[in-house]
Amino acid sequence: MTQIPTFTDVKKAAARITPHAHRTPVLTSRNLNRMTDGSLFFKCENFQKVGAFKFRGACNAVFSLSDKEANRGVATHSSGNHAAALALAARLRGIPVHVVMPENTKEVKRKAVESYGAQITYCRPTLEAREQTLAGILEETGAVEIHPYNDPRIIAGQGTAALELLDEVPDLDVILAPVGGGGLISGTVLAVSGLNLPAKVIGVEPKGADDAYRSFHSGQFVPCVNPQTIADGLLTSLGDLTFAIMREHVTDIVTVEEDEIISAMRTVWERMKIVIEPSSAVPVAAVLNDKLQVAEKKVGVILTGGNVDLEKLRWS
Amino acid sequence: MTQIPTFTDVKKAAARITPHAHRTPVLTSRNLNRMTDGSLFFKCENFQKVGAFKFRGACNAVFSLSDKEANRGVATHSSGNHAAALALAARLRGIPVHVVMPENTKEVKRKAVESYGAQITYCRPTLEAREQTLAGILEETGAVEIHPYNDPRIIAGQGTAALELLDEVPDLDVILAPVGGGGLISGTVLAVSGLNLPAKVIGVEPKGADDAYRSFHSGQFVPCVNPQTIADGLLTSLGDLTFAIMREHVTDIVTVEEDEIISAMRTVWERMKIVIEPSSAVPVAAVLNDKLQVAEKKVGVILTGGNVDLEKLRWS
Repeated sequence: MTQIPTFTDVKKAAARITPHAHRTPVLTSRNLNRMTDGSLFFKCENFQKVGAFKFRGACNAVFSLSDKEANRGVATHSSGNHAAALALAARLRGIPVHVVMPENTKEVKRKAVESYGAQITYCRPTLEAREQTLAGILEETGAVEIHPYNDPRIIAGQGTAALELLDEVPDLDVILAPVGGGGLISGTVLAVSGLNLPAKVIGVEPKGADDAYRSFHSGQFVPCVNPQTIADGLLTSLGDLTFAIMREHVTDIVTVEEDEIISAMRTVWERMKIVIEPSSAVPVAAVLNDKLQVAEKKVGVILTGGNVDLEKLRWS
Repeated sequence: MTQIPTFTDVKKAAARITPHAHRTPVLTSRNLNRMTDGSLFFKCENFQKVGAFKFRGACNAVFSLSDKEANRGVATHSSGNHAAALALAARLRGIPVHVVMPENTKEVKRKAVESYGAQITYCRPTLEAREQTLAGILEETGAVEIHPYNDPRIIAGQGTAALELLDEVPDLDVILAPVGGGGLISGTVLAVSGLNLPAKVIGVEPKGADDAYRSFHSGQFVPCVNPQTIADGLLTSLGDLTFAIMREHVTDIVTVEEDEIISAMRTVWERMKIVIEPSSAVPVAAVLNDKLQVAEKKVGVILTGGNVDLEKLRWS
């Protein structure tokens, strides 16, 4: 296992990405406070570059490479926000970036990654094909692989969102984050424990992709098999690094139903007038459906991104 | 004709509504700047109370009543944002509010107005029925009618949005606002000319409801007959008051097509991650489709509201 990143790494990441990333706003909503009897503080990573917190980790990873490493370029396999984030970070550093995508990737995602200047290689839509194709590219180009979450540079970068949130609201009782591969929640617990603050960190997962829930509660790594959820950012399994950090520092993991996710997403669109993607709605669903105690509490919620495929919405 | 409000009225309105209304943020977007070659400054009234700038005018009207007038209550006929705005303003002052709505009003709008404690009276869905029903209520209750736009208190209140925008960005070359009844654009020109700033004020209308365009360019009042547009906040005709102010101070009025409105709305949702309603997208459509010169210019755009009926969006 690669070395577990520390709070120092999170602080270094913050300094490294500051010239490139947005310091996103923390929004509150009287409506949602009234609905939950809590005080909610939303860290709006939907307003981050490329529309997702993923830019933080990718930017930290790219800018922590030596010039020699960087010149060979970076590479990953992803069809989601990590691919766009890595592509933009690489463009900002002026280095090549290779992205392996399954051939059934939606046009809209393909175009986003393309627009940042990435070299895209398509492959069959299986994990095996993705890994093999990436391995070939790494060998051929000497590029550095940047894994979407099981990488200490990525985890440290994702921790900067909580660092900023806690800078604005240090006395949070709880911080909620969705769990996919676990990069965000791992970075979050590093920030909280490093700052010696009392906030508990609780992960939220869709019931239809509850591998982290089951891994956390059994103490054994459970892979994510055939996940079924609208929250397409949360389909991945934990990594050994993220699982190790979560086991030690996360207070709890809870799950939410699909209809609760969709309804929470609508509530945020309607009441807060901001666009969030389904993965972002997962922790919101937890507070709106009493999956944990929030009454009278100060609760931080990381809204992870805003990349909704509006083609899927029919405007009648 | 009632007396034309002045810049002093706008400043008084600002002082009057400050304890109750949000000072909404002014957002920028690198993406939209790149798409237009201009510098765009979006005044986000979608984040205003009740989700629309209409709260400004309604709040100013309600709080400028004497105690004696106020105690008899206020009344209007509306099925849109003005009804919700007036209802909330009246609740904040603790006075009765009567709203006449056509019986075919959507459940979601009905509930919003109801939730602010308004007394709702339903009538047949014709302008005549609405006016007759309202007249009956005014006679019965002695309530004060607050017209949605052809009222100096409303116009002065709507002008506070531009006042705030110009406080943050005084050197705008142009301010764009959609035109329905003309209350917002009238208040806007009062603010600009009162501050002695060089910004030109340009109105934007849907081609399918272009009565203000035709009135402005012909110099003769043209009523809005059988309007066809998705921008449901812009279906009304100008009033004598708003037409008089616009004729004097507005630089130009331009129109946009329906597909341009829908596409502009999507662009804002996708790129800025904020929810705006179709009426808000009308001036955005103008800058995205070269209806006026914005290259190298600083352009203020008033995003009027964010109340989209998400029932109409199908989530597949």
